[in-house]
Amino acid sequence: MAVLSRLYTDHPLAQGHNIPLERDQAHYLFGVMRRKLGDEVELFNGRDGEWRGKVVHANKHRGILEVTHQTRPLQMPPDLWLMFAPIKKARTDFIVEKATEMGAARIVPVMTEYTNSDRVRQEKMQIHAVEAAEQCGGTYVPEVAELQKLDRMLDNWPDGRQLLFCDEGLIGRPTGLDQSKLTAVNKTGPWAILIGPEGGFSEKERNRLASLDFVTTQSLGPRILRADTAAVAALTLWQRELGDWK
Amino acid sequence: MAVLSRLYTDHPLAQGHNIPLERDQAHYLFGVMRRKLGDEVELFNGRDGEWRGKVVHANKHRGILEVTHQTRPLQMPPDLWLMFAPIKKARTDFIVEKATEMGAARIVPVMTEYTNSDRVRQEKMQIHAVEAAEQCGGTYVPEVAELQKLDRMLDNWPDGRQLLFCDEGLIGRPTGLDQSKLTAVNKTGPWAILIGPEGGFSEKERNRLASLDFVTTQSLGPRILRADTAAVAALTLWQRELGDWK
Repeated sequence: MAVLSRLYTDHPLAQGHNIPLERDQAHYLFGVMRRKLGDEVELFNGRDGEWRGKVVHANKHRGILEVTHQTRPLQMPPDLWLMFAPIKKARTDFIVEKATEMGAARIVPVMTEYTNSDRVRQEKMQIHAVEAAEQCGGTYVPEVAELQKLDRMLDNWPDGRQLLFCDEGLIGRPTGLDQSKLTAVNKTGPWAILIGPEGGFSEKERNRLASLDFVTTQSLGPRILRADTAAVAALTLWQRELGDWK
Repeated sequence: MAVLSRLYTDHPLAQGHNIPLERDQAHYLFGVMRRKLGDEVELFNGRDGEWRGKVVHANKHRGILEVTHQTRPLQMPPDLWLMFAPIKKARTDFIVEKATEMGAARIVPVMTEYTNSDRVRQEKMQIHAVEAAEQCGGTYVPEVAELQKLDRMLDNWPDGRQLLFCDEGLIGRPTGLDQSKLTAVNKTGPWAILIGPEGGFSEKERNRLASLDFVTTQSLGPRILRADTAAVAALTLWQRELGDWK
């Protein structure tokens, strides 16, 4: 079976609209994928669901798609943030990709005491999230936030949002969420997941997190997980118990 | 804090034993990590737990470690196989790494109807599992099996082993294991997880799997997951409900 190319666009999507292609999209569609006039493409913009587009103008550096019909409605993920301490480039890209596939609504790189990297290529991470959504068939693209200090984020924590703190210090403890702490509101309200850097959290950070009433601590089994593995595992547990995998 | 280097060795580990280093281990320890006589190293062999070793001989291409004392017992993972259809090299390596971290006992590459790759570098995958165990602090290294045909494996399926079949065709169904099908024996007995190739399973394969009484089908949420993401998510669900994360 032929697989349709799938493109993200900033433009509004509705029947009859014409969507101009970016230069690299035109290169990809016509140069790499050899699409021709009349060929179909899947389109999404993170807001209007998924639509079918037809090539109505094509040359090497430009092209126009005409939007024909909607193929899927917008599927919003739950209101879940993934907070993580940036690590090496390849693994940071991986975390962004996995967070997109696993249905995080927002990706927040945070500086912790043991974070090695204080430079985050936010724009590149956002492009990576778009590519991940293109590939995994998503209709939504999580926003990648600017790098923030963990301490400052906790100082200004938004009312009503719960935080699932994945603590390497808990290795070997039971891994189910302690739902006894959660009220009906917490179960359906907004959440965030916090994954630590390779060196773990500092004692000071762990103590502060443990003392906050919006924090639930969570063990991720008896083995040490890399940050990218921990992200997928934590997102799985959360989606399964509180999110849209229920 | 200084982090100890961690090495896998084929040799038996017990107090007073001398462990000769491979050429690349000597290069890594003395050339890259600048370890000197008397420096300590962590050692494991997948059988005897984790031991502390001390450098008692070092030159550019050779070295000997003396085993001083045990630091951790062997921690066996549950009797769980991860079966997956090989994909591109980088993602296949990733699946091997993640299966090691997440506590699979055996990794089995399988050929399915839609598997693109019929060549598997089994030896390189095994080396990758060793490196993953070195990095994640594991004391056990999963065995990487030879590439096998899915059909033939199902023909000769071992008595008493259950198979968790992660079926992309179930997208959107509830993701909890249907434990009503599982007896007390199944809950503690050996298992395997089967992850599909990028193109999914064929209709014929899906029908056959659904008809087998040792198979439990499992959905992995409402979004399409890449094979490597699906592997971590399925291992998380299994470890949480039936394995050593309980």
